[in-house]
Amino acid sequence: MTKKEHREYRNRALRFLRKARITITPAESRAMEVTDFGLGDPEHIGLELVIYENNDRYCAKELVMFPGQICPEHRHPPLTATNPGKRETFRCRWGRVLLYVDGPPTRRPKGRVPAERKDYFTVWHEIVLKPGDQYTLPSDTLHWFQAGPAGAIVSEFSSPSDDASDVFTDPGVMRVAVDKR
Amino acid sequence: MTKKEHREYRNRALRFLRKARITITPAESRAMEVTDFGLGDPEHIGLELVIYENNDRYCAKELVMFPGQICPEHRHPPLTATNPGKRETFRCRWGRVLLYVDGPPTRRPKGRVPAERKDYFTVWHEIVLKPGDQYTLPSDTLHWFQAGPAGAIVSEFSSPSDDASDVFTDPGVMRVAVDKR
Repeated sequence: MTKKEHREYRNRALRFLRKARITITPAESRAMEVTDFGLGDPEHIGLELVIYENNDRYCAKELVMFPGQICPEHRHPPLTATNPGKRETFRCRWGRVLLYVDGPPTRRPKGRVPAERKDYFTVWHEIVLKPGDQYTLPSDTLHWFQAGPAGAIVSEFSSPSDDASDVFTDPGVMRVAVDKR
Repeated sequence: MTKKEHREYRNRALRFLRKARITITPAESRAMEVTDFGLGDPEHIGLELVIYENNDRYCAKELVMFPGQICPEHRHPPLTATNPGKRETFRCRWGRVLLYVDGPPTRRPKGRVPAERKDYFTVWHEIVLKPGDQYTLPSDTLHWFQAGPAGAIVSEFSSPSDDASDVFTDPGVMRVAVDKR
């Protein structure tokens, strides 16, 4: 992403947060992560993140997603003998989010993925989260998610977060490099 | 607390959450914890809690506090050889919260505690949290907090929560018993 694109996406995310009456500090606003996962198509595949806290015991973030925006399929693998990988709870705060996990494929899913990348979306069991709904993912579980037609704001509560260790299905994804600005 | 008081406090907390545009589910609303910490003075010392998630790796709650309401002084002690006690992050979402921790006593603190219980408030280093502000407490650290004049809503992100092990300064506090309804 160019610096200009980055700034535009960040400002748009700030407007979404204001709409949902979620207050962040100026420092958090400046530090907001905007990622296109290295795929160069942020309108369809991308994520805006405010990291509230990430220490060696727990992590909390706010995820902002624009209408139809997708966080591509990935899992959080075991990291050490005593760490089975990141466990995480997604709680929808505003809008709607379509969460896809392993399980019986939903017959007519609402999610839409770019045709040229569809092979990299392999789990299609759909869970629809409206404001107040939440879902906890066990560690090392394939999942992806997409915002509904109005976008979404999702609180993520989890064990410590280490983006560099995430395993994405799409070999084109570069999660960490694209966060560097 | 009587059942009637409990219901009234819960309904009042639901109005605060609506005012702050925080959505909870009907099940969460029914399961809301209302506690007077066994002291019989919930208008001054009490807390309303919605527990979003509490598993063996992390915990997330929403705390609702009415104007001037106090969560009395306590700490989260070490639990096992590998668990140094609960670490927690308080993030103010709405209103204002006065957080008191160990450190140089604030000269003219804004907090007010009931005269007959003042001996049980021993740390007076004041941290004022406005919406978007947050503070992370190390484990085993004495702290107490009080809502500002309009009340407060605070997100708590933490390591796993085990209320029964909390150590309160006030010997009259019964944290767990009073949650049973």
